[in-house]
Amino acid sequence: MDSNIFSKHLNMENVKINDSFWNEITETVRKKVIPYQYLALQDKIDNAEKSYCIQNFIKAGKICKDIKSGKNTKTYPVDKWQYNENNSDKDSFQGWVFQDSDVYKWIEAVGYSLQNHYDEDLKRKAEEYIDIICNAQLDNGYLDTLYIINDRSKIFSNLKDHHELYCFGHLTEGAISYYKATGNRKLLDAACKFADLICDTFGEDRIKGYPGHETAEMALVKLYSETGKEKYLNTAKFFINERGKKPYYFDTEQNKESVGENYHYNQAHIQPKYQSEAVGHAVRGVYLYSAMTDIAKNCNDDELFSACKKIWDNISNKKMYITGGIGATVDGEAFSFDYDLPNDLAYAETCASIGLIFFARRMSECEINAHYADVIERVLYNTVLSGMAEDGKSFFYVNPLEVLPIASKMDSRKKHIKPVRQKWFSCACCPPNLARLISSINEYICTDNNNTIFINQYIGCKINSNNANIIIHSSYVKNGQISFDVKAKKPFKLALRIPYWCDEYHISKKYKLENGYAFIELNGNCTVNAEFITKIKMIKCSNKVRANVGKVAITRGPFVYCYEETDNGKNLHLLKLSENPNFVYKDGQIFADGLREKEDNQLYSEYNRPEFEECTLKFIPYYHWGNRGENEMAVYIRI
Amino acid sequence: MDSNIFSKHLNMENVKINDSFWNEITETVRKKVIPYQYLALQDKIDNAEKSYCIQNFIKAGKICKDIKSGKNTKTYPVDKWQYNENNSDKDSFQGWVFQDSDVYKWIEAVGYSLQNHYDEDLKRKAEEYIDIICNAQLDNGYLDTLYIINDRSKIFSNLKDHHELYCFGHLTEGAISYYKATGNRKLLDAACKFADLICDTFGEDRIKGYPGHETAEMALVKLYSETGKEKYLNTAKFFINERGKKPYYFDTEQNKESVGENYHYNQAHIQPKYQSEAVGHAVRGVYLYSAMTDIAKNCNDDELFSACKKIWDNISNKKMYITGGIGATVDGEAFSFDYDLPNDLAYAETCASIGLIFFARRMSECEINAHYADVIERVLYNTVLSGMAEDGKSFFYVNPLEVLPIASKMDSRKKHIKPVRQKWFSCACCPPNLARLISSINEYICTDNNNTIFINQYIGCKINSNNANIIIHSSYVKNGQISFDVKAKKPFKLALRIPYWCDEYHISKKYKLENGYAFIELNGNCTVNAEFITKIKMIKCSNKVRANVGKVAITRGPFVYCYEETDNGKNLHLLKLSENPNFVYKDGQIFADGLREKEDNQLYSEYNRPEFEECTLKFIPYYHWGNRGENEMAVYIRI
Repeated sequence: MDSNIFSKHLNMENVKINDSFWNEITETVRKKVIPYQYLALQDKIDNAEKSYCIQNFIKAGKICKDIKSGKNTKTYPVDKWQYNENNSDKDSFQGWVFQDSDVYKWIEAVGYSLQNHYDEDLKRKAEEYIDIICNAQLDNGYLDTLYIINDRSKIFSNLKDHHELYCFGHLTEGAISYYKATGNRKLLDAACKFADLICDTFGEDRIKGYPGHETAEMALVKLYSETGKEKYLNTAKFFINERGKKPYYFDTEQNKESVGENYHYNQAHIQPKYQSEAVGHAVRGVYLYSAMTDIAKNCNDDELFSACKKIWDNISNKKMYITGGIGATVDGEAFSFDYDLPNDLAYAETCASIGLIFFARRMSECEINAHYADVIERVLYNTVLSGMAEDGKSFFYVNPLEVLPIASKMDSRKKHIKPVRQKWFSCACCPPNLARLISSINEYICTDNNNTIFINQYIGCKINSNNANIIIHSSYVKNGQISFDVKAKKPFKLALRIPYWCDEYHISKKYKLENGYAFIELNGNCTVNAEFITKIKMIKCSNKVRANVGKVAITRGPFVYCYEETDNGKNLHLLKLSENPNFVYKDGQIFADGLREKEDNQLYSEYNRPEFEECTLKFIPYYHWGNRGENEMAVYIRI
Repeated sequence: MDSNIFSKHLNMENVKINDSFWNEITETVRKKVIPYQYLALQDKIDNAEKSYCIQNFIKAGKICKDIKSGKNTKTYPVDKWQYNENNSDKDSFQGWVFQDSDVYKWIEAVGYSLQNHYDEDLKRKAEEYIDIICNAQLDNGYLDTLYIINDRSKIFSNLKDHHELYCFGHLTEGAISYYKATGNRKLLDAACKFADLICDTFGEDRIKGYPGHETAEMALVKLYSETGKEKYLNTAKFFINERGKKPYYFDTEQNKESVGENYHYNQAHIQPKYQSEAVGHAVRGVYLYSAMTDIAKNCNDDELFSACKKIWDNISNKKMYITGGIGATVDGEAFSFDYDLPNDLAYAETCASIGLIFFARRMSECEINAHYADVIERVLYNTVLSGMAEDGKSFFYVNPLEVLPIASKMDSRKKHIKPVRQKWFSCACCPPNLARLISSINEYICTDNNNTIFINQYIGCKINSNNANIIIHSSYVKNGQISFDVKAKKPFKLALRIPYWCDEYHISKKYKLENGYAFIELNGNCTVNAEFITKIKMIKCSNKVRANVGKVAITRGPFVYCYEETDNGKNLHLLKLSENPNFVYKDGQIFADGLREKEDNQLYSEYNRPEFEECTLKFIPYYHWGNRGENEMAVYIRI
């Protein structure tokens, strides 16, 4: 790895967004999503699935008090994934084993949001939760409500299936975000205390375990960056190196010999440095790959980075939907085999796409290659935005590319495909993940190093880099036009990403094209104008993907389009796009000449060329789908 | 219902097959399949899944002996669906709860086979098994090895999930077949004794239960026909009428209130006479519908027959694959919703198609309508024949219309789709079901009443009806030509089915066309020649079936064709049939002009008209697929 070309994303405080497209979305998150989730975490949303999250912290807090006052506490089983009113005692832990993480992700989102927009009421709410959380921490730093409430003798006894280290990771990321926003150290101190316990517990001459669901690794690197304490980096590195060694720790901890159990699910089948294909649970995967990239960069580990590159290529060339969705199969919420990207059975979890953005940004900071930011754009404008309803009050966990509502109801193979967004999920990882990502979108706009500013996402903002101050005026999503008011602090290069979808563009200054960026040498004050000509395109998916043979998808700029029953009538599969359609773009929608195959009723009959009638097809951006009630939707269309 | 037009299939002894196509298949069943299954039932096939069937009868026989000699016997749990070496004691019952039925179906097949071809060795083997079975019967007539071995106090306590009445059904059908073949009453007496116990146990003023897996109903009607004892008919009728009444017996027997449990699976959601759609477990379904038709005919029950007709229409117009496969979804091995007939996720269990043949023949005996026999033909020449390897030693349980071997291995949604036939199944319902159907194919050739012989399947044979003796010489599957040497015993009508696939035919005598049959008035001795012009056809599936839009299937006569990787190379989805292909038929195979789309590697790229290269496509009959090792296969092809 060449550390001379490493770059680093600018932090929240150095990128202030002001963008006609994104202002509305970040404001929805701030005004609707975050307050809504504040209530959801307390189970105060009517008719939504229960969270139990805050309730568990309150129960754990009482137990901490009881311990201090020497009272006896009860124990309950810790052998389930999900604890509910049917299978557990009401005084015991409720919800999924990873339920604690929801409030941590919410606090992380609040931290970012406060950095963008100070809000006393929101701060008060967050600190109310922080107090409840900190009351639930054991004296030795341990903090996971399942084990504190149910059975403290079993702490760290099931790393494979339980999520103490996962919850620790989210605690830490939330704590850092909140500390940066407010200077309030309370949660950060709690996170450090738990981190210290973890560093004392796991390592070469200690327990040789590692997380069943990766996140702690990324968080420990962040905590190292924040505190400078090397032990945090070393423990993250230990977790990465130890993973996949034989005998498998996940067998050892359960006192069993490996019976060929599938550790691909946890990416623990071989050591990460030998991995080359994205496998298993997709969210776990991209969280691991992100941490691998962190460690590779921090430790200048070529071998590990080479694995990251192979995995990246595997995902982006063979396992990613056009919408940026990853993890094609519901079974294990997992990556499927190469080119297996079914539209109507897709899993494509929102969290997995968010994790892919984490992975991509880290890769972009190690290498100069616009492809990483291209993928971030693809994911962001399609799967991420589709995860949330326009009103910010309902969410998609699964992001299919084709939906038939009756199939979701009648066909148990498609039960995971919801035709409309849900108010909340008992397993509510995605909504707060969306909130934290969108609230921190600032950190994805650019990276810099000592001589270059890389502009990765064309979002209107003010940038304060060591190289220059830049104001970006953007109407990128509308017409591909952006201008940059630059006040250089010294001679530097402005590197503008040429979007992957763009084959014609104009830049007002002389530039040199390299690795997908236009490099412009600048000094003093100046304005740079760029225009990325934005055309409607028909995109073909490789015919190695069986589901899309003979079909195309429509895109415009960063947006993938889809078509819905509400606009195009029932039985979307009968529609066909003309081969040379006359596209009309109006108010974000696309109209095109199409054909509708006449319905036939006889189940089997001799072939006659099917009859078609002409029609006008209407496409809307994929991220808008499902906002007008339950209906059919599809991305790909026959041509 | 108009009993004047009722007809009845001719029994085995009145139809002797001699047919160039079928002789080989029935001989394979006699010489290979039946002896192979004799060994499989005793777990004597290397590397095949275990049956445990005969072993269970031997264990139950010992217990009967112990009971008689007053010894104490152990009890074991009866709470599972499958008992194996991991979850049960080795002295207890092993296998699935319905394991007994496998030997009964085998004996039924042996009975039919012996009627066609007397074989002393086979008779000896069957009687060896019959002795083992009869030794296992309790004094009161009860005979189900799970409960006899494990816990006699729980007999008939779980009709919903366990299969005592199902096994009774198969015992009875096997016993009748064997008695007819040999005159040996031993098994028939055992069946009657069990039937008497069942009649004494279930009824209006007794236990108001009914089978969880239907079969007893059909068997009781058969036993009534054989013995003339009305109580058997009445109990069958009771089972049909009681089914689906509220409160649900399946709740009552488990002392619970219905919590909205899905009794569609067992077709017990409403009374059969009110049912109009085929739902739930497909084998259960068609066995029930067959019995409903039996009862309707025997009791002249218009209301029940009207339900049968609605269900029939639902299956044949909306829920049947072109191959005659039914039960589209693996979940619950069940009928899916209307027009949901995916090719690569199909379940289409062999047993379900066999049951559809049972249902169809019964319907054809109630109404004059060639459609029923058309469906029998479709099922028989495609899904039924594909169920068995050419060597008779391996079998398909699931009959997909598209197979990608890597998907079967890597994609858990497709684990049920086997790319090659299996030696045996722990749940081995299909292989002996095939053996009994093919051995009794004689009974599907024709039906008669007092003035008409309906020829439904054009299989070479000698027919002995009250109306006439007929010798059929058939090269139907080759070229559609059949001749009938008729010796009339009185003036009668010969009704020849016009096959559904045929639009040009020649019959050498004057005929009147009605309900799909050509009626020819005959007297004395004569020869009738018929030729059904057999063309290669491209068949379109209704575009309500999403999977097949833009595709066709190739057929010739009764055979649906498919194409395999072995003949056409990898990636069958890249092949396309020319719109006006020049078909060449040679030795049962079909060659046609086709196009192969060139592979592209880039996952997403701007659309360009794909490039094709010309190729010759080779199609083979669907029933032959998977006989040359693991490879891709598909029925439908893009056009």
